Amino acid sequence: VRRTPRDGADSVIRALADSARATARDAGLPLHELVAAGCAAPGPLDHRTGLVHEAPNIVGFIEFPLGPRLSEALDGLPVFVDRDTAMAAIAEVAIGAAHGQRDWVYVTVSTGLGGSIVSGGRMLRGATNTAGEIGHWPVAFQLDPSRDAGADLQRCGCGSFGCAESLAAGRNMADAYGVNDAAEVYAAAARGDERASTIVIRAERALANLAVGLVNVLNPALIVVGGSIAERQPSHVLEPMRRGIADRAFRVPAAAVRVVPAALGGDVGMLGAAFGARERLSGRGEWFL
Amino acid sequence: VRRTPRDGADSVIRALADSARATARDAGLPLHELVAAGCAAPGPLDHRTGLVHEAPNIVGFIEFPLGPRLSEALDGLPVFVDRDTAMAAIAEVAIGAAHGQRDWVYVTVSTGLGGSIVSGGRMLRGATNTAGEIGHWPVAFQLDPSRDAGADLQRCGCGSFGCAESLAAGRNMADAYGVNDAAEVYAAAARGDERASTIVIRAERALANLAVGLVNVLNPALIVVGGSIAERQPSHVLEPMRRGIADRAFRVPAAAVRVVPAALGGDVGMLGAAFGARERLSGRGEWFL
Repeated sequence: VRRTPRDGADSVIRALADSARATARDAGLPLHELVAAGCAAPGPLDHRTGLVHEAPNIVGFIEFPLGPRLSEALDGLPVFVDRDTAMAAIAEVAIGAAHGQRDWVYVTVSTGLGGSIVSGGRMLRGATNTAGEIGHWPVAFQLDPSRDAGADLQRCGCGSFGCAESLAAGRNMADAYGVNDAAEVYAAAARGDERASTIVIRAERALANLAVGLVNVLNPALIVVGGSIAERQPSHVLEPMRRGIADRAFRVPAAAVRVVPAALGGDVGMLGAAFGARERLSGRGEWFL
Repeated sequence: VRRTPRDGADSVIRALADSARATARDAGLPLHELVAAGCAAPGPLDHRTGLVHEAPNIVGFIEFPLGPRLSEALDGLPVFVDRDTAMAAIAEVAIGAAHGQRDWVYVTVSTGLGGSIVSGGRMLRGATNTAGEIGHWPVAFQLDPSRDAGADLQRCGCGSFGCAESLAAGRNMADAYGVNDAAEVYAAAARGDERASTIVIRAERALANLAVGLVNVLNPALIVVGGSIAERQPSHVLEPMRRGIADRAFRVPAAAVRVVPAALGGDVGMLGAAFGARERLSGRGEWFL
């Protein structure tokens, strides 16, 4: 694990290439014996061209050709880029909690909140390959018409308000409380701190709305929930999702869906990058990706 | 146009069969010369079996085998059932505003609020064929943690709260104001009535959240908006959707999408029922439906 450089895209490319070369060396594999590499990145991005459109949390990643630049830095090795959550979904369907599923949703509740949608056995990509940004599904607005629509709602990293991510992702919850780690917010809420409780309750309501919407709109057989916050706080993440679905979603799709923890833990993105690269290199990727 | 009987499913079937027979007679076509019929119904339902799971606005339509029962009442004529919004989407893609589109969303804002999602050229159906209920995408909750999550939010017909339909559909807006027609709510808001303005402003915020979510999550090239409220109040329906997308959605998918009025007006469900039945009868339906 390396820290992401904060001084621009060139440094990020250098760090990625150094890491890849070191990994290959440690494995006793010279770079020229590799056939391809996979690279997971935050979205929105175009997995076909390897172009990252906007990644607010990485300095310099605005319309940045991550795939071509990384390939160049690795002596022309083919590099297949995809959104981190798409890579995670690829791994979970290949060898994890969604093995064999055709209609399901991957959700990660971590520093950020994201996911990927698989429908009829195919990953939903949309018209310009940016579909699946479920963290930026707006689940709230200010009900008081005399105030702005986003009043009393923390601004999201994407520039909007009311996004599930802005209410329920770790970084946003920590920021709202003025600390570095969402764990402190949960701990303070457990002690009865009112400001922390407000943040936690709103996060649970946001997750419930998200879960109900996923079930009513997409009718998945499975919702796989990964990410560090989901792992550490299942009673604040998976439980409100399950309760929301049981209490509020349409009966038939509610009965058809299970909400389960992800199986692959922190390496899910790396595993998915490897599986994704293998499938796309072989040409088999098109059926799913 | 006939009123839907309120005294149970048998009466509804009789009315549907009478209407079909009268239409066939007026067209000079005896029933036994027809090859199939299409029937649009409110969802959730299973279009493969013709079973309507729950249609709160039609008395007796709970787990009701609409397709088989109507077929029986029409001397065994094959009857293809689908959700009204799916039928509308079939018509709009066949000869309407979405002609030739592969990634797009149909939205109707009318008595209720619903839609259908087309992704990669196929209608999104989900694990048990109930996907697409975008009117029941929750877009709001009570931000005040000391109150219930649904406090100050009108209960939706589906039993939940915060659904786009509960805030922005005609029947729900009229009910919230205590009148029979949403037109009265818009008129009262235009006169400066505060209670009506609250309902209209919340409806616009709900539609903006819905539109932003559709764009971020599904990345459609087109959102086709039909229904009586959308037709009569475009500045309160299409405009808030467009503004929401321009101001709040991710830049790339926002630039890739257009929000346009539906092309086919009030007959869209009937046209779609005919197209849908023809395609499914011929076996061609599977590629899209």
